[in-house]
Amino acid sequence: MTSPTLRTYAFIDRMQPQCAAHIAATSPGDVPLAGMAELYIEMAPGNEVFRAADIALKAAGVRPALQIIEREFGLLEIHSEQQAEVLASGQAVLDELGMSETDRIKPVIASTQFITNVHPYQAQLLNKWRKGSMMMPGQSLFVMEVAPAAYIAVAANEAEKAANITVIELRAVGRFGRMFLSGTESEVQSARDAAVAALEAMPGQEMKR
Amino acid sequence: MTSPTLRTYAFIDRMQPQCAAHIAATSPGDVPLAGMAELYIEMAPGNEVFRAADIALKAAGVRPALQIIEREFGLLEIHSEQQAEVLASGQAVLDELGMSETDRIKPVIASTQFITNVHPYQAQLLNKWRKGSMMMPGQSLFVMEVAPAAYIAVAANEAEKAANITVIELRAVGRFGRMFLSGTESEVQSARDAAVAALEAMPGQEMKR
Amino acid sequence: MTSPTLRTYAFIDRMQPQCAAHIAATSPGDVPLAGMAELYIEMAPGNEVFRAADIALKAAGVRPALQIIEREFGLLEIHSEQQAEVLASGQAVLDELGMSETDRIKPVIASTQFITNVHPYQAQLLNKWRKGSMMMPGQSLFVMEVAPAAYIAVAANEAEKAANITVIELRAVGRFGRMFLSGTESEVQSARDAAVAALEAMPGQEMKR
Amino acid sequence: MTSPTLRTYAFIDRMQPQCAAHIAATSPGDVPLAGMAELYIEMAPGNEVFRAADIALKAAGVRPALQIIEREFGLLEIHSEQQAEVLASGQAVLDELGMSETDRIKPVIASTQFITNVHPYQAQLLNKWRKGSMMMPGQSLFVMEVAPAAYIAVAANEAEKAANITVIELRAVGRFGRMFLSGTESEVQSARDAAVAALEAMPGQEMKR
Amino acid sequence: MTSPTLRTYAFIDRMQPQCAAHIAATSPGDVPLAGMAELYIEMAPGNEVFRAADIALKAAGVRPALQIIEREFGLLEIHSEQQAEVLASGQAVLDELGMSETDRIKPVIASTQFITNVHPYQAQLLNKWRKGSMMMPGQSLFVMEVAPAAYIAVAANEAEKAANITVIELRAVGRFGRMFLSGTESEVQSARDAAVAALEAMPGQEMKR
Amino acid sequence: MTSPTLRTYAFIDRMQPQCAAHIAATSPGDVPLAGMAELYIEMAPGNEVFRAADIALKAAGVRPALQIIEREFGLLEIHSEQQAEVLASGQAVLDELGMSETDRIKPVIASTQFITNVHPYQAQLLNKWRKGSMMMPGQSLFVMEVAPAAYIAVAANEAEKAANITVIELRAVGRFGRMFLSGTESEVQSARDAAVAALEAMPGQEMKR
Repeated sequence: MTSPTLRTYAFIDRMQPQCAAHIAATSPGDVPLAGMAELYIEMAPGNEVFRAADIALKAAGVRPALQIIEREFGLLEIHSEQQAEVLASGQAVLDELGMSETDRIKPVIASTQFITNVHPYQAQLLNKWRKGSMMMPGQSLFVMEVAPAAYIAVAANEAEKAANITVIELRAVGRFGRMFLSGTESEVQSARDAAVAALEAMPGQEMKR
Repeated sequence: MTSPTLRTYAFIDRMQPQCAAHIAATSPGDVPLAGMAELYIEMAPGNEVFRAADIALKAAGVRPALQIIEREFGLLEIHSEQQAEVLASGQAVLDELGMSETDRIKPVIASTQFITNVHPYQAQLLNKWRKGSMMMPGQSLFVMEVAPAAYIAVAANEAEKAANITVIELRAVGRFGRMFLSGTESEVQSARDAAVAALEAMPGQEMKR
Repeated sequence: MTSPTLRTYAFIDRMQPQCAAHIAATSPGDVPLAGMAELYIEMAPGNEVFRAADIALKAAGVRPALQIIEREFGLLEIHSEQQAEVLASGQAVLDELGMSETDRIKPVIASTQFITNVHPYQAQLLNKWRKGSMMMPGQSLFVMEVAPAAYIAVAANEAEKAANITVIELRAVGRFGRMFLSGTESEVQSARDAAVAALEAMPGQEMKR
Repeated sequence: MTSPTLRTYAFIDRMQPQCAAHIAATSPGDVPLAGMAELYIEMAPGNEVFRAADIALKAAGVRPALQIIEREFGLLEIHSEQQAEVLASGQAVLDELGMSETDRIKPVIASTQFITNVHPYQAQLLNKWRKGSMMMPGQSLFVMEVAPAAYIAVAANEAEKAANITVIELRAVGRFGRMFLSGTESEVQSARDAAVAALEAMPGQEMKR
Repeated sequence: MTSPTLRTYAFIDRMQPQCAAHIAATSPGDVPLAGMAELYIEMAPGNEVFRAADIALKAAGVRPALQIIEREFGLLEIHSEQQAEVLASGQAVLDELGMSETDRIKPVIASTQFITNVHPYQAQLLNKWRKGSMMMPGQSLFVMEVAPAAYIAVAANEAEKAANITVIELRAVGRFGRMFLSGTESEVQSARDAAVAALEAMPGQEMKR
Repeated sequence: MTSPTLRTYAFIDRMQPQCAAHIAATSPGDVPLAGMAELYIEMAPGNEVFRAADIALKAAGVRPALQIIEREFGLLEIHSEQQAEVLASGQAVLDELGMSETDRIKPVIASTQFITNVHPYQAQLLNKWRKGSMMMPGQSLFVMEVAPAAYIAVAANEAEKAANITVIELRAVGRFGRMFLSGTESEVQSARDAAVAALEAMPGQEMKR
């Protein structure tokens, strides 16, 4: 058995309304609300997430929105109205792993796209697939791909704090996390800048391919 | 074999952006775009919709977004950038049936709900279920139920024309059509008034239970 | 508690290849194969189908492809390589109900459509929805709606025996059963005639609305 | 607009573990847990459930597991660790409607089936369809169909209180509610008796067809 | 074209009731029953499974429950009431490949988790996702991840033979196979020991990463 | 950020009827029809497909059937009745990337299977999974696996041009593209030869593992 890797450890102090609504709309567990604190923990091998969830839920007053396994990785989300509860739960998981927060992998932005005046047919294809709000043709679109995947939640939350954008889609599971934000060109630029800055500011270990 | 009933015959002269995006996001056929004209035809028994689609598509330059059968009824949507094409297609279907537009059933509003300051947990339940944009807690919500179902498309389109609202959900198939619109209290009131007025202004035959 | 109604009792002596493949492709239970005999039993209230399945499976050497409940009705399919086994199972169910085969409801054809030279967009909409083979534009299409729903299996099987057609879709559950067959105009006409004749030849009780 | 009908008003004082797990596993909203109190409210026209949810959530400290609309009816479930909160929420809905608890429709048992020594193929078909625990061949099965649908939750909860059974499936939406319980013959008999007795003891108005 | 790899070759002499029910509930093909013998064959590239299925089905009296392709690998399950038939089918596949049973890859346990007194929110998340029986809060949970994936079927079957546990979930496709078993702490420990022992006893080739 | 890779660049001059119908039946965007020209562009990282779609749709008169992201790769399909429009759109994407058509990865056939007289149970498993036409037992089956995935569209289109086969399934997304064709032994052999020849004739860069 290989020792577990802490792929993502991403604390969000205050969930923004659209990000919270998107997670609440797409998660199978307890409903997170705007204003709550939350923590994403992504691990490999994927099954390690079950032990982490057990520790986190018993350590403090948090509730989980999701606990999932995909091909290789496992992802846990916990949240609470009290930041301290979320932090205590996260610390309990780190303690069990014998790790600290910066033993996480450092996020790498795999690609970004900035598209102005989105074509109606491109908007339609996005709208069939997204689970957030609808993309209106003619608006600007920002797409970001990050690895490990769950860091995309931090990027989206900071983008929503910084700019008046619409959350089209967030996908935090798999080899890459992806987000799709729309709005006016200038607002989407502000959102992009905030997202990039937030990820670049997160210390961690270099990912090995 | 019983003779077919023309449940809905609803012409929309100019599709509004959100209504168009919602239909485009949820339909299996050709992609309708904002600004196009469209026509909904709902029939019983449901299979009559297949003959109607054949006539409509061959009569003029229209394309279909959907052609569906549910338990009892069939629904066809056709659209074009040219209003005249849509009208000619619709007339061809009416001619085949030996009917005129007012032989349709007159829409009946089965219920309306107006909810201010939507509770976060109610918003979350709507957000898990809707296919339009996300409902933000704290906004107002208007819900309308109409029979026959496909008239809801007219109500939604007029509401979007009249007010600055967000389209949360439209369901135009089944015994009742339903729409869910959100926004500020005053905008949602304007949307409601426009929707109610549009339906009440449509002549047709009384529905038999 | 109301006494159960025997909506459909439809014996098929020899399953045709496409009909068998369609049922096998869309059913959750034992795999029926071309050449087998089969029996459809549809009842109301829907739950009566569970007792019928228990009796049928224990009475003789048959296996079930499906046992389903929808809104109001329940449907059971059983099959075997031996016609006698299927007939014995069916008789056991009839005995338990104190009924004979002709206490079933007589099938009523609710509508038929015959469309020649199917338009490419209509074909596309059918192809997104069907679970049988693909409909090619330009071919003829025959659609039949029958009540009670499960009699459509008899109609389709007789149509496939009688003509060289392609099975696009069969739906045997709900208020109406529906089938969609395609081919050349003359083959589809032969299929239609065989299907109509088979249903009209089945004695039973008049349906009460 | 027709005046709303209170189809189901069903209070459960203490959710049993399997019933709670089944609802938690199949509902989109807040997670109910064993030991909580809950209330089901089913209304027609279906949209009335949105106003009821708004009133209930704002009236007291309850959370909703589901708020759904099907063809004709709407269903709301609310729960809390405090019975008084659930009762206060329910009373607020009744007050708004100008009704009392006994203005609900009285439950009618549409059918019951008791099957001993379930055949392996029947078990397999149930197992493909259920969302509760798996049915083991050879056990006994009890199936109940009740109208209005949401009363099935009361029946299942009382059955689980009274006997050592396995919850295979619960469906509380539509024209009929249905439950499927398995176990030894004697335990399933006890479960059936408790379920029937609970429903027969609930006063209400006779349903009009 | 690369030469095919025999990732899993796993013979089960006698399917246990819950494992059989789980496979029967989640497979698209012929229904396996408790007491039957079965064989899992997993290959890369995935398409090799189609040739293997053809050989296996024609070589002896076996039937397939599944034949699937995922990203990289293909999986076949065959079963019969007669062990000899299953063994003969498997041998025919090995002969075609010019391999013997021990040319399979040796199973590697990627991770195991043992969780006592499962938290209600963790149980709820598992219950939304599993397709086996429901996990009850407070019980113990054992999770195992193995590669290649299909060996998990052997582990689960041996665990069910050895202990009184509940099968919550089995996933035999992908990079890792996973199983989730629940019960009392001591029963789950016995299940774990039996599963680990069974996998460690299977000879084969070392996996290359 | 890594520089994008052009995995597939596959131009089809004239879509054959079954291939067109399959894409139209399984795609979320504009409906492609037989006789149109089309182009598949597959890129890594997957998000690059959004920039490519924006450029392609604005460069010439084409419409997209799909724009998707899977685990690692992104795929775009565009089509038009005018070959020149498709070619101009594709050239615009290449120009933006600073690439020419032969900078694409050269297709590699990962495996082929040729199965005669397909067993009924194998056919049933294929039929449950496919989205094209049904496979009839007793016919021959050809299966091909190619990388990068989207080249399978070229292989299938050439096969349909060359032989009288039935398109059972096409999957153009993921690590491997796969196609399943059925018919008589000689027709399927002709189809296979045409598919292999078409892929081998496409110049490009060697794939790095």
